[in-house]
Amino acid sequence: MLQSKLFPGSLKENPKDEKSVSAKYLIRAGFVDKVMAGVYTILPLGWRVLDKIEDIIREEMNAIDGQQVFMPALSPQENWRKTADRLNKIDVLFEARGANDESRRRNDATYVLNCTHEDVVTPLAKKMRFSYKDFPFALYQIQTKFRNEARPKSGILRGREFRMKDLYSFHRSEAGLKKFYEKSKVAYTNVFNRLGIGEETFITLASGGDFTKDFSHEFQTECEAGEDLVFKVKSTGVCYNREVTPSQAPEFKSEEEIKKMELIEGKGIIGVKDLVDFLKIEIERTTKTLVYKNEKGEFLLAAVRGDYEINEEKLCKVVRAERVELARAEEVKKLVGAEIGYIGIVNVPEKVKVIMDDSLKGRINFEAGANKTNYHVVNVNFGQDLESPKEFFDIKIAKDGDLFPATGEKYEVFKGAEVGNIFPLNTKFSEAFDYRFTDKDGSKKIVYMGSYGIGSTRAMGVIVEKLHDERGIIWPEAIAPFKVHLISIGKNEEASKLYEKLQAEKIEILFDDRDISPGIKFAEADLIGCPYRAVISAKTLEKGKLEVKKRNEKEVEFLTEEELLKRIK
Amino acid sequence: MLQSKLFPGSLKENPKDEKSVSAKYLIRAGFVDKVMAGVYTILPLGWRVLDKIEDIIREEMNAIDGQQVFMPALSPQENWRKTADRLNKIDVLFEARGANDESRRRNDATYVLNCTHEDVVTPLAKKMRFSYKDFPFALYQIQTKFRNEARPKSGILRGREFRMKDLYSFHRSEAGLKKFYEKSKVAYTNVFNRLGIGEETFITLASGGDFTKDFSHEFQTECEAGEDLVFKVKSTGVCYNREVTPSQAPEFKSEEEIKKMELIEGKGIIGVKDLVDFLKIEIERTTKTLVYKNEKGEFLLAAVRGDYEINEEKLCKVVRAERVELARAEEVKKLVGAEIGYIGIVNVPEKVKVIMDDSLKGRINFEAGANKTNYHVVNVNFGQDLESPKEFFDIKIAKDGDLFPATGEKYEVFKGAEVGNIFPLNTKFSEAFDYRFTDKDGSKKIVYMGSYGIGSTRAMGVIVEKLHDERGIIWPEAIAPFKVHLISIGKNEEASKLYEKLQAEKIEILFDDRDISPGIKFAEADLIGCPYRAVISAKTLEKGKLEVKKRNEKEVEFLTEEELLKRIK
Repeated sequence: MLQSKLFPGSLKENPKDEKSVSAKYLIRAGFVDKVMAGVYTILPLGWRVLDKIEDIIREEMNAIDGQQVFMPALSPQENWRKTADRLNKIDVLFEARGANDESRRRNDATYVLNCTHEDVVTPLAKKMRFSYKDFPFALYQIQTKFRNEARPKSGILRGREFRMKDLYSFHRSEAGLKKFYEKSKVAYTNVFNRLGIGEETFITLASGGDFTKDFSHEFQTECEAGEDLVFKVKSTGVCYNREVTPSQAPEFKSEEEIKKMELIEGKGIIGVKDLVDFLKIEIERTTKTLVYKNEKGEFLLAAVRGDYEINEEKLCKVVRAERVELARAEEVKKLVGAEIGYIGIVNVPEKVKVIMDDSLKGRINFEAGANKTNYHVVNVNFGQDLESPKEFFDIKIAKDGDLFPATGEKYEVFKGAEVGNIFPLNTKFSEAFDYRFTDKDGSKKIVYMGSYGIGSTRAMGVIVEKLHDERGIIWPEAIAPFKVHLISIGKNEEASKLYEKLQAEKIEILFDDRDISPGIKFAEADLIGCPYRAVISAKTLEKGKLEVKKRNEKEVEFLTEEELLKRIK
Repeated sequence: MLQSKLFPGSLKENPKDEKSVSAKYLIRAGFVDKVMAGVYTILPLGWRVLDKIEDIIREEMNAIDGQQVFMPALSPQENWRKTADRLNKIDVLFEARGANDESRRRNDATYVLNCTHEDVVTPLAKKMRFSYKDFPFALYQIQTKFRNEARPKSGILRGREFRMKDLYSFHRSEAGLKKFYEKSKVAYTNVFNRLGIGEETFITLASGGDFTKDFSHEFQTECEAGEDLVFKVKSTGVCYNREVTPSQAPEFKSEEEIKKMELIEGKGIIGVKDLVDFLKIEIERTTKTLVYKNEKGEFLLAAVRGDYEINEEKLCKVVRAERVELARAEEVKKLVGAEIGYIGIVNVPEKVKVIMDDSLKGRINFEAGANKTNYHVVNVNFGQDLESPKEFFDIKIAKDGDLFPATGEKYEVFKGAEVGNIFPLNTKFSEAFDYRFTDKDGSKKIVYMGSYGIGSTRAMGVIVEKLHDERGIIWPEAIAPFKVHLISIGKNEEASKLYEKLQAEKIEILFDDRDISPGIKFAEADLIGCPYRAVISAKTLEKGKLEVKKRNEKEVEFLTEEELLKRIK
């Protein structure tokens, strides 16, 4: 490709409204263009990269017997009602309908604009495959997804419209699903290795949602622009998404004598920050106590150290509830006799269950709500002012500094960008659509499903987040827009010959034939980030060689055309 | 691919709700599946074909220096307001917004879901390219489009969601646009030749809309399921879409004496059908007269022979109006003094302009409205009852049997499916977005644009409409899902060896390894339509050969593996 023809073709300004490195570089170098918040056009350079990324994904999906299909972006609303009313529950769901009166007069239906395809692929599979002989099988597609994100951010890392590979697998048993699920992990690992971010991408345990008691798995690339917090157990390499990280609080120690509990009036002092200021104590001495109600309407108190938050998913598991929600003010008042904000773990009515996080363990002279409006108690101690509970639990949201409970080692904590996820759906969708197969013995059995996603546009962004320097992008060879960036310094004629020669050898080459300063050419080559830069100038012609530099190396080399060809092939 | 694994993999019933051959075959053979009216999933076999079709299109677009991009499906409403309020004028436009209260609470914006991309690509190009040095250039994409069709029909021939290649070209002058426009015709011709429908696909002159006084060009494939009517001038090969076909009515001759005009009461007799029955005359003797108003509010009468309809676009050109609309009942009454339905070309108030179609020419003793409510006149004659007009015009919608005015030859008329179109947009969108470039001399000049579409899913359907027999589809080799369909009759082991051998030679092969009757295997192979069918059975093994049959030939041949390989390579 001649750079003089390439669209858009010239160095852009740094975009003012983008904060992430990837968005800045991709826009400035002309890989993508922002149409509006969360919505981007992929420009020619970007399309060349994305196409290669998607080819790699496709090859790996084919290798695990995925069959490529193309499901529509529009789907019937009724499909999304069947699965426990996802139509109304998915808070990023888009709908499509006629854009004006005349359009709606001609067809006034409203469709879902899909953000994922379980609700489309399950009825499709059900219609087509229903004998035990037909299983297992897997269908995938690579296409555009739509999510009505409240706050799209970081360029193509989180958009309202983005490209994604989604694969769905179908099995006769949970064991069959698990076997394929493990295969998919290998395929995903291959994908990210080939994309050049394998070493920094970690299989991370995440919530299984309401689909499974097991974990789902995310592929998290360590990355400052990432939105997730990953907790890594260094001794084993196991990673957890913050939402499911088992956590032990580092003990809060204080060498002091046990004091006598004291009731303190603190009208309007609500929340740990206020308490810390008012009582002039360490935040670790404060106690956060919340009243929850489970799906049966039973109440319980949950308490964590003041510097933690409660993880409701963990709490559900501890109390074996399907879900919990915060009790309303009047319910709290009735239950404990005090206003919200003054609830604590002392003087709790006997009938009320209290779940204490392990961060409360071992503290002396700590604070708690007094269960009396406007009052707190300080210098509280287990054994003296309340019974030490039979068991402490882990019901907190993990934070940096926490320990892995099984070994007591401190987690390595980093930000992660989720480039892929795999999900054992089990029977959630097959139950919703009543998808059963006829087994050998004629009996009807429920189908097991898995769901496996990779955001290809997001992956492109994450790759740039990882592979760049202060001058621009450093593309891995497998996905670079061009392999060679040929720069002519006043020697277009000679360079043209080489350009044609390399093209004839099927080498992807971008030829900077523009009549601009060498400085701009070099800067732009570094920004665009092709693996090899080859310069032809009066100086190099004198030597009968080319000046060749790899984007990720510092040294230049002087090579003949043949040597260059050999090197890049 | 093993057919036992192929999704969905078994012969389906003929779909009951599909009328077109292509929809029936594509669904029954498992290429596509209907999700809802106008919305289809492309299944693995279909995806293999579509992918090849799109590769061919891509190659031809690259050959005319198109650069591939990927614009979003969502776009800002304001873009669509700028172009003379297309937001409200395009009656197939979709919009996208949050699907439920929570989604809309998080982001309550409404977006256009694009049916075409002029309104996106123009501001993109304007942002990036503005110097005369940057021109010409062309951007294209292959992606999903959305149209809120009132009546989707014929399977993937007209859908609410479909895939399309759309290219946009940008030029410094009308001459530059025209040059590229001619190049695009060649590229399109190459595409349809390579897709196997070149011989039956005709470049057809169509309306330029309000973009250009010239024609636009459609690529119409002669096809019973098509929605357009194409008029071909046999002597020159030039084709016209009905909407712009110059037409001369075959003369209505009657050997009879000129009679005296007679006023006839016919209360409630309105329209030519009623008149024919009531007066017992040939329809060609009746006259259809309508009252129109132009954009300035000026009225005129337009008259055609009773067996024709008025073509308003032609009428506009004749009277040099931007648009015309039918006058309202009270306006007609005021103008002519009679109710609609009794308007005619005799006794017309002098101030009123009358435009007569050439189908009126040469008739004797004809009928017309009397311009008196409840009355018609018969035995009307030019020269006797009204002056012969200075000029007759062509303001009718052409119909089968019409003559090409320039030569008087009868048109060849056929139904066409529009597989592509090219459009000289000229300055319509660049004016709307104020897209100008800086010329050499520093002056600002308007950009000229063209737009070029090919519906790839529709093309797949049209190919099936053209290339099939009573047993199934006959894919051209370039786009067949597999080149060879290998059928084992009880000899899976031997067939497996050949299967692996051919795969190692990179030949795309579908191997029917299923344990079902040969009859079903043969029927399905014919239905799916791969170019070569190769059978391995006890009989063929005895001969040491394979039984090979081309899908589009009748005879079988016995070939060795090597001979087969040679044949298909």
